[in-house]
Amino acid sequence: MPAVIPEDSVGIVQAQSIEFTEPLHLSCGRTLDAYHLTVETYGELNSDCSNAILICHALSGNHHVAGYYSMDDKKPGWWDSAIGPGKVIDTNKFFVIALNNLGGCHGSTGPNQVNPKTGKPYGPDFPIMTVDDWVESQARLADYYKIEQFAAIIGGSLGGMQALQWSINYPDRLRHCMVIAAAPKLSAQNIAFNEVARQAISKDSQFHGGHYYEQNEVPKVGLMLARMLGHITYLSDDGMKSKFGRDLRSGEISYDFTPQFEIESYLRYQGERFSTEFDANTYLLMTKALDYFDPTAKTGESLSQVLSKATAKFMVISFTTDWRFSPERSQEIVDALVYADKQVSYAEIEAAQGHDAFLIPIPRYLDVFKAYMQRVEGDTPSLNSQETI
Amino acid sequence: MPAVIPEDSVGIVQAQSIEFTEPLHLSCGRTLDAYHLTVETYGELNSDCSNAILICHALSGNHHVAGYYSMDDKKPGWWDSAIGPGKVIDTNKFFVIALNNLGGCHGSTGPNQVNPKTGKPYGPDFPIMTVDDWVESQARLADYYKIEQFAAIIGGSLGGMQALQWSINYPDRLRHCMVIAAAPKLSAQNIAFNEVARQAISKDSQFHGGHYYEQNEVPKVGLMLARMLGHITYLSDDGMKSKFGRDLRSGEISYDFTPQFEIESYLRYQGERFSTEFDANTYLLMTKALDYFDPTAKTGESLSQVLSKATAKFMVISFTTDWRFSPERSQEIVDALVYADKQVSYAEIEAAQGHDAFLIPIPRYLDVFKAYMQRVEGDTPSLNSQETI
Repeated sequence: MPAVIPEDSVGIVQAQSIEFTEPLHLSCGRTLDAYHLTVETYGELNSDCSNAILICHALSGNHHVAGYYSMDDKKPGWWDSAIGPGKVIDTNKFFVIALNNLGGCHGSTGPNQVNPKTGKPYGPDFPIMTVDDWVESQARLADYYKIEQFAAIIGGSLGGMQALQWSINYPDRLRHCMVIAAAPKLSAQNIAFNEVARQAISKDSQFHGGHYYEQNEVPKVGLMLARMLGHITYLSDDGMKSKFGRDLRSGEISYDFTPQFEIESYLRYQGERFSTEFDANTYLLMTKALDYFDPTAKTGESLSQVLSKATAKFMVISFTTDWRFSPERSQEIVDALVYADKQVSYAEIEAAQGHDAFLIPIPRYLDVFKAYMQRVEGDTPSLNSQETI
Repeated sequence: MPAVIPEDSVGIVQAQSIEFTEPLHLSCGRTLDAYHLTVETYGELNSDCSNAILICHALSGNHHVAGYYSMDDKKPGWWDSAIGPGKVIDTNKFFVIALNNLGGCHGSTGPNQVNPKTGKPYGPDFPIMTVDDWVESQARLADYYKIEQFAAIIGGSLGGMQALQWSINYPDRLRHCMVIAAAPKLSAQNIAFNEVARQAISKDSQFHGGHYYEQNEVPKVGLMLARMLGHITYLSDDGMKSKFGRDLRSGEISYDFTPQFEIESYLRYQGERFSTEFDANTYLLMTKALDYFDPTAKTGESLSQVLSKATAKFMVISFTTDWRFSPERSQEIVDALVYADKQVSYAEIEAAQGHDAFLIPIPRYLDVFKAYMQRVEGDTPSLNSQETI
């Protein structure tokens, strides 16, 4: 709880819901006749709409990226460390848009929202979403704000995949593309972990084939297991070692199945908390979007060929101990961009925190990020006049 | 199914159950008044009982290490590739003993066996077992066979931990100790994966607090999840990539939750098969024994100090892509042994198969293993006379 809102915070923010009535044709072949997106914005859009930055969220993220909802709010948005006045993504200069993706569970049209055709939650009938579908819905969001071209589209993990897909699908609509802690597509091991999470959720006796809303139940165990497992892959072996090691909660082994090592109680706590906060059907959809993501799949071209359409400048960032999407996976993107003769900067940041590092204000990460944002600023035509507003 | 039993097979084998009536005091403070161990042996014990080799099993292993149970048997024991006449562990020369550990689910006293005091399965009342307890029970098994000193004690993974503990607890009772794909203790990440597996099992609605036998149910989903997850950690990222990659079962994405990638159906199949074959309470016990294993915990000495008691010669083997117990973890053991001035050989085997590699007949692995077994043979007093039997 911020006794006083910090000066470099965007302050008290409010989400808004934006309606879209033009049908959205999805990759799966189905159509959403109408939908709404829950959105937060920070900073001000300048008159020529050239200073907009889109933030794309990862698996369990949402539109609440920065700031607080009230003076009693215990914690700020999930990337508050990077977004605010004077921060790396400077809201004195840029107009930042963050949304909850379609299929999400934080207000946008998704499984836990009422299907107007049935008057009941979509539940498992909500269509499978892809990164392409999200880019399309985000492009319409840009239209809504009359943004022809984003100064930058930025995302970490699954968010980075959306930024990358934007550069291919709408090359003229972004000047900069920041792909952080991502991969050009999931590995078999990545898919395998997702599949364990999906099985945990869908085989939970309280899942009811996804119709748990009607039963007033929640597949809590499945969600808890999915999150515990996810959490292991977000942290590094080294990071876990230094944070938890083999420390015992009580200092003694109790020879039973109560949580004894610190890491056990930490994971249980994280899992249990998540299971009351996140929607199981959304979790399933998000993992599928991850599995299906592969910008080369549609045409069978190489990644380099697919990226040859891009006109944006790229910044790719990876973290040394990230084993979910290792530096090698980021380098595949960089190599493809270099081969396609694109402008690309790349930084591999030394960090013990694994995949989670992309959310953590690590000094060198912030330095690199800030330096790149100065280039984004330099490429934003009317930013100087915006600064005097 | 072997149409003909291969010449280098131990052939048709039979398990036997051995009763022990002297109470066994366990690390947890409880006592097993009596117990039985299910055992298989291959080869012949020589007259001075100097040619015995003990094989210790890993998490889901058992006493059926080599050979077939019948001519219709579809597959041999779990380490048949290494054990047989003329094989690396040559049953023409050595008398090989393999057992199902206490707490196991393949015949030895364990949760799925009847507690004579209650007439019902032990279930969750079976005491927590430790590697120390297993070593103690195995020492009594050696007594039963009148084996004062093993030619070698050999194990992979959790089996390697038992071999290592033997060298500390009973230094005079083994001449050689082979520790394969093991670690001196689990890391926080290792414990974390075990905890997810335990939660999956114990929170399964068919677990009934471990009393599922009485309900005629099995926590199949929990066991399936535990095995799927375990399997990911047994394989390497690279191995999964070359075996499955992003191959689709039908060649097309179906935009639903049916298994689409080959890796998904592989894992589901492995998980489902395991869930019908293995006991959930045993799985819980085995993961706890892994978590608790730490030869230094009792005295607070360093690993090197603890190992200073050992008189055996050591062979430590690791595999390059094993990320469950990486080569660095094996090197910790080697370093401690070197520091304690023990005889130790070490080989890091290039292998794509991850942790599972220890079960796979990889040529260089077999070469190294065979070379070391020649040293074991050289240190076995009466082996030449045994060869003529």
